[in-house]
Formats: sequence, structure tokens, C-alpha cells
Amino acid sequence: MRRLFLLIIAVFTVIQANGQETEKVIKSIFDEALTDQTAYRNLEYLCKNTKGRLPGSPAAAEAVEFTRQALLKAGADTVWLQKVPVPHWERGSEKCSVISELSGVTDLSISALGFSVGTTDNGITSGIVEVKDFEELKRIGKKNIEGRIVFFNRPADNTLINTFAAYGGAVNQRVYGASEASKYGAVAVIVRSATQALDDYPHTGVTRYADDVIKIPAVAVSTLDAEVLSKIIKADPAARVSLVSTCKNYPDTWSYNVIGEIRGSARPGEYITSGGHLDAWDISEGAHDDAGGCVQAIEMIRLYKKLNIRPKRSVRAVMFMNEEMSGTGGRTYASEAKAKGEIHYAAIESDRGVMSPRGFGFEAEGDRLQKLQGLSSWFAPYNIRDFDKGGGGSDISPLKPMGTLLIGYIPDVQRYFDYHHSSNDTFDKVNIRELQLGSASMASLVYLIDLLDL
Amino acid sequence: MRRLFLLIIAVFTVIQANGQETEKVIKSIFDEALTDQTAYRNLEYLCKNTKGRLPGSPAAAEAVEFTRQALLKAGADTVWLQKVPVPHWERGSEKCSVISELSGVTDLSISALGFSVGTTDNGITSGIVEVKDFEELKRIGKKNIEGRIVFFNRPADNTLINTFAAYGGAVNQRVYGASEASKYGAVAVIVRSATQALDDYPHTGVTRYADDVIKIPAVAVSTLDAEVLSKIIKADPAARVSLVSTCKNYPDTWSYNVIGEIRGSARPGEYITSGGHLDAWDISEGAHDDAGGCVQAIEMIRLYKKLNIRPKRSVRAVMFMNEEMSGTGGRTYASEAKAKGEIHYAAIESDRGVMSPRGFGFEAEGDRLQKLQGLSSWFAPYNIRDFDKGGGGSDISPLKPMGTLLIGYIPDVQRYFDYHHSSNDTFDKVNIRELQLGSASMASLVYLIDLLDL
Repeated sequence: MRRLFLLIIAVFTVIQANGQETEKVIKSIFDEALTDQTAYRNLEYLCKNTKGRLPGSPAAAEAVEFTRQALLKAGADTVWLQKVPVPHWERGSEKCSVISELSGVTDLSISALGFSVGTTDNGITSGIVEVKDFEELKRIGKKNIEGRIVFFNRPADNTLINTFAAYGGAVNQRVYGASEASKYGAVAVIVRSATQALDDYPHTGVTRYADDVIKIPAVAVSTLDAEVLSKIIKADPAARVSLVSTCKNYPDTWSYNVIGEIRGSARPGEYITSGGHLDAWDISEGAHDDAGGCVQAIEMIRLYKKLNIRPKRSVRAVMFMNEEMSGTGGRTYASEAKAKGEIHYAAIESDRGVMSPRGFGFEAEGDRLQKLQGLSSWFAPYNIRDFDKGGGGSDISPLKPMGTLLIGYIPDVQRYFDYHHSSNDTFDKVNIRELQLGSASMASLVYLIDLLDL
Repeated sequence: MRRLFLLIIAVFTVIQANGQETEKVIKSIFDEALTDQTAYRNLEYLCKNTKGRLPGSPAAAEAVEFTRQALLKAGADTVWLQKVPVPHWERGSEKCSVISELSGVTDLSISALGFSVGTTDNGITSGIVEVKDFEELKRIGKKNIEGRIVFFNRPADNTLINTFAAYGGAVNQRVYGASEASKYGAVAVIVRSATQALDDYPHTGVTRYADDVIKIPAVAVSTLDAEVLSKIIKADPAARVSLVSTCKNYPDTWSYNVIGEIRGSARPGEYITSGGHLDAWDISEGAHDDAGGCVQAIEMIRLYKKLNIRPKRSVRAVMFMNEEMSGTGGRTYASEAKAKGEIHYAAIESDRGVMSPRGFGFEAEGDRLQKLQGLSSWFAPYNIRDFDKGGGGSDISPLKPMGTLLIGYIPDVQRYFDYHHSSNDTFDKVNIRELQLGSASMASLVYLIDLLDL
């Protein structure tokens, strides 16, 4: 009995000692992240020197090379480029005005949508009809739409606390509006920017054409100018809109995912991936979306090397290419992993901006979810409390069929859509502490999942 | 037995119905706050039209009048001004350079500290000695300090997660540095700005002189220029500093707290106060510190009136004057309350910036704390989860001897000290959703505490 008691004490002491050791490792991760500027300077470089890095652009190529070097400097054991097929679309000149006998000519802040076809150099001038959704389009019918521009003006729902849900409730206008309006003979669409903010920035993003429709030009208009446009055409239904947008689709081309790896000390054939996407909209520095997520992943490598943390599994930082337009980077990464028979144990994605961390969303159920939620106690000293069921993210989701645990990094997202897909997404909008609390929390989570085999 | 059962069902139904009703009220508060722009526009006015509203300044008088009118527009039953004695200090011209034979003349970004005495118009030119704390001052001693400028250069600790704790660990240099250095014969002090940010903004704040010392000029230097200055004097200990700062203290004067009240429907002699402070540093718009807290308190009145919420107790929004310099607004409010025999049931203060809400800190113990923490379930839909023991705030703390429950509003504070007491604390740094989630959460908490008699 006494020996059993001593054994229990001994086991307990070992657990406790390991707990203290683990606590120390996590503290060292946060301390180093909060006192070093490397990630923040990497972010500055991507924002200031590779602005507008759409897939296939020279800026994207520059971002690939810069992050490759940054991963080497961070101390990754191996760094390589993974070839990814990407679309190639370019903005042209763009200008939009509404002309009314009552209010004269009013210029509107617009931005062509990705994949949109262009107008001719002379543009389109036509009548305009405002709708809130596809139902209204149907109700109004072809006779009122044919030959006119359709203006989709459904605002994001400000009463939703989750800004991504509000975005989700509005974004179908942007993605499918051109296709739907084309069915009724519209000549172009102007879409209210998918943001809860009332601002002067047009927020772009992709539009997608169905195979069986005539492709018509599509642009986003700033939310403030959406209000202006709506007011003008309500006062004067005969108002006409002049739209020039000479953007163009080019043949597909090639770009790269950038991958840096620390080889696992015990199970090198199992992988944990941490990533963000390297591409960004052409009008944007892409600071929060998603240079921030990229430099956080690179920072995990730097932290592990600097602090001599040796994970059992191989750990990868991945800069995915082409999340914004068609997600080929994520799919290429997963299909190559599958082809090579790699075991992808877990993957985490940071693509909701790099504001202050709130927690993580786990694509898990039952016991495993509970165990993962139990990790929250390690993060209490850092005020990171939200360990919930949730979605991983679009670049890592192609790993799901391989049984990979998918994790989404969740910062505070209240102001994210002030920046999203607009020229307002700039380096100065990122706070170094918020960025680095994110880096440290993800590096710590990956460390714990690997250590505890969760 | 059947009757008892029916009674239990009935009571349960009433409780559940009340619960659903309460849930609806809280949702209506959040919905209204998130879809209305009044508070945000009030904030814009205070920032843009009453910038630099130090106690006794014309801008402060303008802010008093504006918020008085805003409270009337919000629908307060009564609005009045409460006379408050305030200091009167004014910045003069200011300029600081370090002159070294090695690096020539380097200008530094400085800002005089509140209450500081000035230099003559010609300023001071003298040698400089850098120290990290008062211990080092003592160690170096009078022979190395007399006739020189002391440069306090202890940085805020970046590894602390609570930025207020980091500030607290650095700010004694600013508040007591001049007094301490004067004891050793220093002629002026230059203090590293009390912020974790590495930036070009000097962050001001008060300095306090002990009664028995010669008052010497005190200025803050930006953290980046603190690094520059330190480098220069390390390379060239014979470097000299030229400092002009012609700020001046004037005789005390009068200003006002601005108070708006909704009279309680059942217990009008009991009060719940929600407040922020109206004064701000002369170099700053004071957006986060603390126009934001003021407009949130006004917004509580507007929300209650608009939504026809009739609290049992009298509810007050208070714009405290002179938090920044000597706290006379808070003390006047409490002493007048005591003199009138008012029962102050609870008070909440918003003076940690108006970033995204995380929760509340309650100055309570045991059962009462537990009950208050139990309120967190009402806030789960709004992702406000931190219901902890904590401090109320400096303007409401004089109510404590009256047994008032004191509550601090806790937003995410990672980026707060980027703005604090500097010209960087501007309107554009406030996000309308983050501001209004704060307004709604405080209005909801006051509603619940009153409803449930907590």
C-alpha cells in the first residue's frame, strides 16, 4: 500500500513537473514573440514591397521569393516551392458615374470584381435598376432588366455579432450577381461592397459566371456610394449610369506555394501544417488578408528554432497561393500530400485577420473536441479563452478527406471587414502585439497538440 | 400534490417567460446600438471640435456644452452641470535636441508633462545622464547628477499580457521622476514615454512634485527617440541636450461634470452611475481616452429611452471632468452624493479605451461576485465572456466608502497604449462596432443589475 502511494506520488510529481515544463515552454514562446520584431518587419515588407500580389503578378512572384528567404532565415530545415496553376486576371482603367437630370453627374467609388469581363474602352451607359436579392430580380423580370445595369444593394446585417456571418449573408450578390442578372438580359452589375462598414472604399472579391450565361461586367461600389446611388435613382428612376471597367482575363499561368519545414524528431512522416495565403487583391496591401497569417506561420518556425523546441512530428509553415481567386494552392498542397502518402495529423489556418486573439475553432466532435477544449487552461494566462467547435479555413479544408484535424485561428473580427479586399487593408492597421499574440498562440497550440498527441 | 406540481410549473413558466423577455430586451439593446450612428457621431464631434480639452480650456467648456446637449437629445429626464475645481496648466513652445561631436544635432520628439514647470525661453543646455530607475539615481549620486538633465529610460515590459500592468510598471518615472531627480540636483528630466509601442509619438501625462523639492522641467520623449538618445549618449557621454519647454501653471479655476439622469420608476433615491471622463490631453483628440467612454454613457440613456426601458433605480450618465490631472470630478461627484444622502447602488466606468469588449471587472467578493459572474450567460451570444474580479476605475472609486458596487468595463487593451496620452489617439482609431458593442454591453449590464437587484 505504501509503495502504491509512493508510486502515485511519483507519477503525480512527474505529471506536475511536465506541466510546469510545458507552462514554461509556452511562456517562452509568448515572451519571445512579444519582444521580437521579425514577424512585424516581414509583414511590413510584404505590405510595402509586394502590394497587390494577385496570382500570376510580378508582386506575387516577389512575395514568393521574399517568404522563401524569410523561412530560411527563420531556420527551417527545408524550404521549397510547390508549383500551383493559377488564373491571371488584371484590372484595367475604371470609372463610374450616375447621371441624373435632378442631381447632375455624380462619380462613384468602384472596383472591378475578380474574373469580371471588361467593358469596351468607351464603356456602357444605360438605365439602372436596384434590387436587394435574386428573388427581387425574378419578380421584376426580364422586361424591366433587359439592356439595363442591375444594382445589388443588400447591406450586410449589422445586428449579427459574427461579422463573417454578416459577410456571408451579403456576399452572394458579389459572387453570383452578374450571372443571375445576365439571365434577365442585364448589361452589367454594380454590387454594394460586402462589408458592414459605411465607408468610401470599394471592397472587391471574385465574381463567378455560370457556364450558360453571357458574361457581363461586374464592379463593387463603396457602401457610402451605394447609399448615394440608391438615393439618386429613387429620386430619378430615369437616371443613367456610365461605367468603364477595362479589366481582362488572361490565360492561366503558374505560381507557387511556399513551404518551410522543421523535420519531426520522432514521427517525421506525420505533419502539422500552419498557414495563411500569400496572394492579395490587386488594390490592397493585404495586411490583414492575409500577409499577417503568412508571417505568423513563418514566426512559428522562427520561434521553435530560436527556443530549441523540437516537435515529434514534422511541422510546416505554408504560404498558400491563390486563395482569393480559385483556391488552387490549398488543393495542390492536399493532392500532393495524398499522392506522397503523407500523414497530415493537423492543420491550422490564420485567415480571419490578425487582430487580438480570441481562440480557436476546431473541426472535431465528441471526445476529441473535449480534449482540445481542455487545452484552453494553458492559454488562460494569455486571455485566450474561446475554444469552440468551428471551421478550419478554405486553404486547409482540402486536407479533410485525409482525416486531418482542421483548426481555424479566431481573432476578434469586429473590424476585419473595414479592411477586407480593399485599399484600406494596410500595414498601419496591424498592431504588433495583436499580431504576435496570434503567432504565439498558434505556435503554442501546435506544440501542445504534437506533445500530447491530441 | 398535483396543485404543488402545477404551482411549480407555473413559477417555472413565469421565470422562463421573464428570462425570454430579458433576453429580448438585451438583444434589442445590442440591435439598436449596432444600427444607430448617434454615439459614433458624438464621438466624432468631441474629437474634431473639442480636441485637447484639458480642464479649464475653451475646448473643455465646449465639450461640457456639447455633451449637455447630447444628453438632452438622448432623452435624459434631467441634465445638469456640477461645478468642479480644476487646475489650469498650459503647454508652451517646446523643442529638444541632443548635440554630440560624433553625430551632430539630433532633434527629439518631446511633449511637456502636465503640471511641469517650464524652462526660460532660451531653455536649458546641459549634460545628460541616463538611468533606468530611482535605485540607479541613488547609486549614481549627486556628484554625477547635479547640474545635469536626467533621462529616465526604463521601457514598459512587453512580455506582460495586460498592457495596463506594463504601463503601471513604467509610469513612476513619469509621475515621480522630476521630484526624485531634483533631490540630486538635476536641472530637468526627460522621460521615456510610458507605452509598449515603439513609435514617434511622445505620450504625455502628469508629473507630480513633492512639496520639499525644487520644481524642475519634465518632458516625455517618444520611445523611438528614447532609443536614439540612449544610443547617442552611450557613444558620446559628453553629449549635451538643449531643452526648451515654456509650459506654465496658472491659478486653479472651475469646470463641470456633466450629468444626465433617468429617474427610477420604483426606487428613484437609489442610483446607478455609468461614466467616462470628458477631459483629454491638450495634444490629443482623446478618442479612446476618453471621449469614447463618455459617448458610451450618453448612449445608455439614448438606448433606454428609445427602447422604453424603465429602470427601477435612477440611472445616470456622468461625464467626469479632470480625471487626467487631479481627479477632482470624481471626488466632487462622490462628496455631493454623500452630502445629499443619495444611495449609490452601483457605478461603472469606461476608461480603458473603446476597443472590442471582453467583459467586466467587479470590485466584489464571495456570493455577490459569484452572482455577478453568473450574469455572463446573458452575454455569451455577444462573445463577451470575461466576468472577473477587478478594479472599477479612478472616477468612480471615491464612491467606494458609500458601499457602491464598482465595475470596470474591460475592452481588449492590446493596442490601447499606442494611443494613450498622445496625438495618435484620434477618431479614426475607433471602430463603430467595437464602440457600440461596449455601449450595449454596459447598458445591458446596468439593466440586469437593476432588474435582478444584484
